[in-house]
Amino acid sequence: MTLIALLTDFGLRDTYVGQMKLVIAGIAPGVPVVDLGHGVEPQQVREGAWLLETAVPFLPEGAVVVAVVDPGVGTARLPIAIRAAGRIFVGPDNGLLSGVFPSEIRRAASGGGSAAIVPRGIEVRSIDVARFALPSVSATFHGRDVFAPTAARLASGLPFEEVGPSLAEAVVLPPFEGVLLDGGRLRGEVIHVDRFGNLITTIRAEQLPRRFRVRVGSSEPIPPARTFAEVERGAPLCHVDSSGFLAIAVREGNAAEYFEARLGTPVEVEEG
Amino acid sequence: MTLIALLTDFGLRDTYVGQMKLVIAGIAPGVPVVDLGHGVEPQQVREGAWLLETAVPFLPEGAVVVAVVDPGVGTARLPIAIRAAGRIFVGPDNGLLSGVFPSEIRRAASGGGSAAIVPRGIEVRSIDVARFALPSVSATFHGRDVFAPTAARLASGLPFEEVGPSLAEAVVLPPFEGVLLDGGRLRGEVIHVDRFGNLITTIRAEQLPRRFRVRVGSSEPIPPARTFAEVERGAPLCHVDSSGFLAIAVREGNAAEYFEARLGTPVEVEEG
Amino acid sequence: MTLIALLTDFGLRDTYVGQMKLVIAGIAPGVPVVDLGHGVEPQQVREGAWLLETAVPFLPEGAVVVAVVDPGVGTARLPIAIRAAGRIFVGPDNGLLSGVFPSEIRRAASGGGSAAIVPRGIEVRSIDVARFALPSVSATFHGRDVFAPTAARLASGLPFEEVGPSLAEAVVLPPFEGVLLDGGRLRGEVIHVDRFGNLITTIRAEQLPRRFRVRVGSSEPIPPARTFAEVERGAPLCHVDSSGFLAIAVREGNAAEYFEARLGTPVEVEEG
Repeated sequence: MTLIALLTDFGLRDTYVGQMKLVIAGIAPGVPVVDLGHGVEPQQVREGAWLLETAVPFLPEGAVVVAVVDPGVGTARLPIAIRAAGRIFVGPDNGLLSGVFPSEIRRAASGGGSAAIVPRGIEVRSIDVARFALPSVSATFHGRDVFAPTAARLASGLPFEEVGPSLAEAVVLPPFEGVLLDGGRLRGEVIHVDRFGNLITTIRAEQLPRRFRVRVGSSEPIPPARTFAEVERGAPLCHVDSSGFLAIAVREGNAAEYFEARLGTPVEVEEG
Repeated sequence: MTLIALLTDFGLRDTYVGQMKLVIAGIAPGVPVVDLGHGVEPQQVREGAWLLETAVPFLPEGAVVVAVVDPGVGTARLPIAIRAAGRIFVGPDNGLLSGVFPSEIRRAASGGGSAAIVPRGIEVRSIDVARFALPSVSATFHGRDVFAPTAARLASGLPFEEVGPSLAEAVVLPPFEGVLLDGGRLRGEVIHVDRFGNLITTIRAEQLPRRFRVRVGSSEPIPPARTFAEVERGAPLCHVDSSGFLAIAVREGNAAEYFEARLGTPVEVEEG
Repeated sequence: MTLIALLTDFGLRDTYVGQMKLVIAGIAPGVPVVDLGHGVEPQQVREGAWLLETAVPFLPEGAVVVAVVDPGVGTARLPIAIRAAGRIFVGPDNGLLSGVFPSEIRRAASGGGSAAIVPRGIEVRSIDVARFALPSVSATFHGRDVFAPTAARLASGLPFEEVGPSLAEAVVLPPFEGVLLDGGRLRGEVIHVDRFGNLITTIRAEQLPRRFRVRVGSSEPIPPARTFAEVERGAPLCHVDSSGFLAIAVREGNAAEYFEARLGTPVEVEEG
């Protein structure tokens, strides 16, 4: 049984997501649609890519993901579909779908994304817009007009090979991981601020030394803790988040406000 | 296959929408429910009507829409159901469902809505509340107590004719379109501010002259552009939105903040 | 036919709820998932319990509710499942699920919740985490790792008796009701602020005298009204909300702003 999962930066105050769902329901009636999330900050492709990557382990086999964070909509960037590990990902070729590519391939990419050779085991195709888009394609809403109808066709049984011509390259972002600095320090950044004001960083759990402290920007060092209950109310702590990345929180408080931090704020880990 | 689509001004911080969905699931188990949107500004019937109208082209045949923006809840305004072009619309008789009526009929309406004769091809019925509402009807939440259960019954096969007595008149709003002024100028207003701060107006694409400039309130004239990439970052542009209406945006910025504009802010188009 | 309803304090800007839905879809494909709501204020267990309690009357028989407002996640508080009146409730044992317990039993509880003997007709079980959780359980996201997979198993036919060992006690909160003071006055508090700024209180409709006035904090007395139309625009009123509790509103305005009130603000009812 398949499903279609949606990840966008459209938010929920408009009917953009609703219109995508109506298009899907018209083409693929009965296929369940799951909102993975619509709160990516407007046009923040890297944040969207991180949110998608951390959700991949929970995607049932056969799932079709539509991901739309697309500042280049209406320009030459290609609409693509990727098949990897039994899941399909539909969206713009701007690095948003990087999470399906191995880190080795992504390490050569520049910050804003670079074209990389598609490795074995992953298939990337350019969407045949003339065949799968709605009859009238707007300049600014390919989520509704191109990506949703294509995903609905794929979820209804369209063979992946028919979605459009195969591509040898796709745009990928650098992997989400801390960068090793002098003296064993790790440098990363805030990649997502959640509803609670928790700061989630690009530094992976497996990169952390056995004992460490964390600085957000030029803050005092923050101690690690396994649960919120280990520190006093209102005090900061850092821990490995449910995504497997280092996160900074304030017990019963808001770390984004506490540290005046936001997307992109640098974070540093030092041993000891 | 049918579905029930919901459009309300209830937002998503409460359980109002969730309660409506539970009521629907109890009466029409297995019927898919699609959130068209819940971010209509509180009690803004015109904005709700515009959001519904622009979504109508994407409604699958057989869809049942429940629309609730209902400042008159608990007063004498009728709960109605409309059948038009194979879709059914359930909601208050306050103009919110105007989008199914042709513009000719709506042109005589006053700004806040006026009763109009229902034309051929459209059927309007008053909901038999005693028969279809929940056993206990609250004074303030007819979305849950009247509209949701009625829609669920219709989506489960209740013949439209049984929903209640036929009505010869329904309240309609003026059509969403620019008004022609002296010198070929068009006057409209902001009808929706989206998540990105884009200002969407009541002026239709087909009303625009070949070359034009737009003013928001008393702003400098804004040039049209086909995509965001055509102007510099932080600069304003106007374009035809995915809804087919004139919209004003700021590249990688927020037009509502840039122009200090909001719902109802006047917008003017001049040739040249 | 079953369904899974979700109530959390996760909000919708992240992918937390989306990840829970993917986990459910993987285990219980085809089971409908309904968002009861995700706007509980962060870690406000009492508000969550009230929102759940007021939705219980609308839950179809056989429904499985997953409720997560869980400041003690990662500590010793038990993950539990409750069966009552043909519905199942899955969540932390912190009082959040109190709504299924009768008021008599809850009256002995302290404000933050106390263990109470489970009465006849209600079954409480501790979730066998080793058996039902995801292979890797995070310290901070039991919604995804413990509660969602358990609920999905229950909705897919796992007999309730197999979810884990029976418990004789569960944590309950005091009932949501006004407390009688000298002179027939009733004292309650704001338990929920809705999207419109309406203040919903812990005082039940059936506690109200025939004629009364309400004070929010130290406000002037507010008159009751049956509908918003009974007072002037911008004027406050109080009425029985769709939940059956006393609520304070401002016609076409925002009562939370008008009274500078929030969760926990005291509210008093006096006769006359």
